Amino acid sequence: MEDNKIRVGITQGDINGVGYEVILKTFSDPMMLELCTPIIYGSPKVAAYHRKSLDLPTNFSIVNSASEAVPNRLSVVNCTDDEVKVEFSKPDPEAGKAALGALEKAIEEYKAGLIDVIVTAPINKHTIQSEEFSFPGHTEYIEEKLGDGGKALMILMKDDLRVALVTGHIPVREIASAITKELIQEKLLVFNRALKQDFGIGAPRIAVLSLNPHAGDEGLLGTEEQEVIIPAIKELAGKGILCYGPYPADGFMGSGNFTHFDGILAMYHDQGLAPFKSLAMDEGVNYTAGLPVVRTSPAHGTAYDIAGKGIASEDSFRQAVYVAIDVFRNRMREQEAHANPLRKQYYERRDDSDKLKLDSTEEDL
Amino acid sequence: MEDNKIRVGITQGDINGVGYEVILKTFSDPMMLELCTPIIYGSPKVAAYHRKSLDLPTNFSIVNSASEAVPNRLSVVNCTDDEVKVEFSKPDPEAGKAALGALEKAIEEYKAGLIDVIVTAPINKHTIQSEEFSFPGHTEYIEEKLGDGGKALMILMKDDLRVALVTGHIPVREIASAITKELIQEKLLVFNRALKQDFGIGAPRIAVLSLNPHAGDEGLLGTEEQEVIIPAIKELAGKGILCYGPYPADGFMGSGNFTHFDGILAMYHDQGLAPFKSLAMDEGVNYTAGLPVVRTSPAHGTAYDIAGKGIASEDSFRQAVYVAIDVFRNRMREQEAHANPLRKQYYERRDDSDKLKLDSTEEDL
Repeated sequence: MEDNKIRVGITQGDINGVGYEVILKTFSDPMMLELCTPIIYGSPKVAAYHRKSLDLPTNFSIVNSASEAVPNRLSVVNCTDDEVKVEFSKPDPEAGKAALGALEKAIEEYKAGLIDVIVTAPINKHTIQSEEFSFPGHTEYIEEKLGDGGKALMILMKDDLRVALVTGHIPVREIASAITKELIQEKLLVFNRALKQDFGIGAPRIAVLSLNPHAGDEGLLGTEEQEVIIPAIKELAGKGILCYGPYPADGFMGSGNFTHFDGILAMYHDQGLAPFKSLAMDEGVNYTAGLPVVRTSPAHGTAYDIAGKGIASEDSFRQAVYVAIDVFRNRMREQEAHANPLRKQYYERRDDSDKLKLDSTEEDL
Repeated sequence: MEDNKIRVGITQGDINGVGYEVILKTFSDPMMLELCTPIIYGSPKVAAYHRKSLDLPTNFSIVNSASEAVPNRLSVVNCTDDEVKVEFSKPDPEAGKAALGALEKAIEEYKAGLIDVIVTAPINKHTIQSEEFSFPGHTEYIEEKLGDGGKALMILMKDDLRVALVTGHIPVREIASAITKELIQEKLLVFNRALKQDFGIGAPRIAVLSLNPHAGDEGLLGTEEQEVIIPAIKELAGKGILCYGPYPADGFMGSGNFTHFDGILAMYHDQGLAPFKSLAMDEGVNYTAGLPVVRTSPAHGTAYDIAGKGIASEDSFRQAVYVAIDVFRNRMREQEAHANPLRKQYYERRDDSDKLKLDSTEEDL
């Protein structure tokens, strides 16, 4: 990495969706190649097919591995059977296999240190299912493969609006029972850490949404606020985490109150994602926090309804690349800043004199 | 009603909130008095106090009843104990009593035919509770008092975005069990009727949201879509109601797909209201459909956090007045259109000749 550009590994996702369209549109702008060295894990043949079908100007080079990627070029690593056919908008197990192959290769090369971050194009969560992939989505798969025991937290973000969820892909019937003090605190801690480390926010403020309408209206509309959520918040607030709430989701999002916080922790999928997407669909980015690897994706899916039409917006994908680069840099900066810490020096706790004890250090206390 | 202006009865709501501020700001514009004859049910003394505290220019006349209201003036009917004191932002049982008194008087005068529509300023749902008022809110109270057996349906609206709920003020834990085919269909029918009668939409299109994330993802994330929601939609669609779905809430709101529908039926409170308020808070209006009376209110509450500061926006309240007037007029128009129907004439159903049988009418068939 002589040129010091961040190497962005990109998985092709579902070849019958808008993945290649948004990737190729993003890198049709030469400015993007100044920012990073992009490597697509996919198929040169499929990329060329999309390029031609959609009349896109983006050029790319074929390489065997990210190690061969050169600066100022978009590279494609072939990891797909050449026989695979693109049929726009068609859910196809072959396309699912191609999506998984790309993901596996990207993870292999990430482990080998050949790429720095991973940006995933959308997959079809049904056709990708197989013996090797039985997960609700990318997030869980990557947590398993590259998590190193860490717990992934999906953050949906646009600019300073960042939404994370306590529960995710579960039926509404199971939400209330799944919400526990421990789970809320686990998510809050990962969120807090991510806001500091990944987004460079010194003292992040996190708003916690209520589970029930009107925050349970003092128990009239549910007891989880009193019994679970408020104790969870209070306990962590007592430990110095700047977490507040619980706020009723509708008023909180509607009043613009959310702009005062660095992160919003919603209790369940639609509560967080419906208002987020209402506000931020076009440029929304999905960031997987809590893991050693930096992985982002656009907030949209395969968008079969507009696949192959040339009308998909690449804004969300471009933002996903930006966020991956930003987070990677923020982490590097934090590591550098903490690489050679000064020995900490303390005030004597029980001493009213408030004098700095230059002779006592952390080890002494 | 010689001047033919619609008589808008306005209840003062909680006197310690922003109610009077948004009322007085709305009617500081003389144009509003061209549109309607507004009658506040409340207290001239309290109105004067707010007027002075907030330095508002709005004038009003004191009357004993809406029957004395004159055109081009804002009138106030006194129905509040003169001893009551305004304390901005304070939850106060005396203020609750004042809010209820105004509501009772407005309902009495509505029943006597002295006002045409009711616009309610926000109440504090806790301080208003009493032997006479034990309801979750205005909607249920008015359904009981003026419903004539009709079932109220709360519609949150801004321009062409109209959101209604299958379930309302219940804990999240109870949502899934409360969703039944019958309930969905009941709400759909009221919604459909309101869109036609109250908003003048000939063939309204209604989108139904899914209960579970990703519409249950073919059963992986919940079975209510397959077992309850889809059958409910299909059955009514078969009867000519233009209802569609179920759509996953997040993508539906985020993709702008909602703009293709006249109404959106959400399954529960936060699912409908969080994205609605994200998109439309400032000018949102709460309309109570399904009842003989036309009643609207602003989408915001008492807003204690900004009460008495003079910074509350009257946009939502003004829109509530507009919507009440529009709905009242649409209903009048519909009544007129149907007042003297032509005798219907029919094609003979089993006759392939397709000739109009001018000699047979509805009664014959």
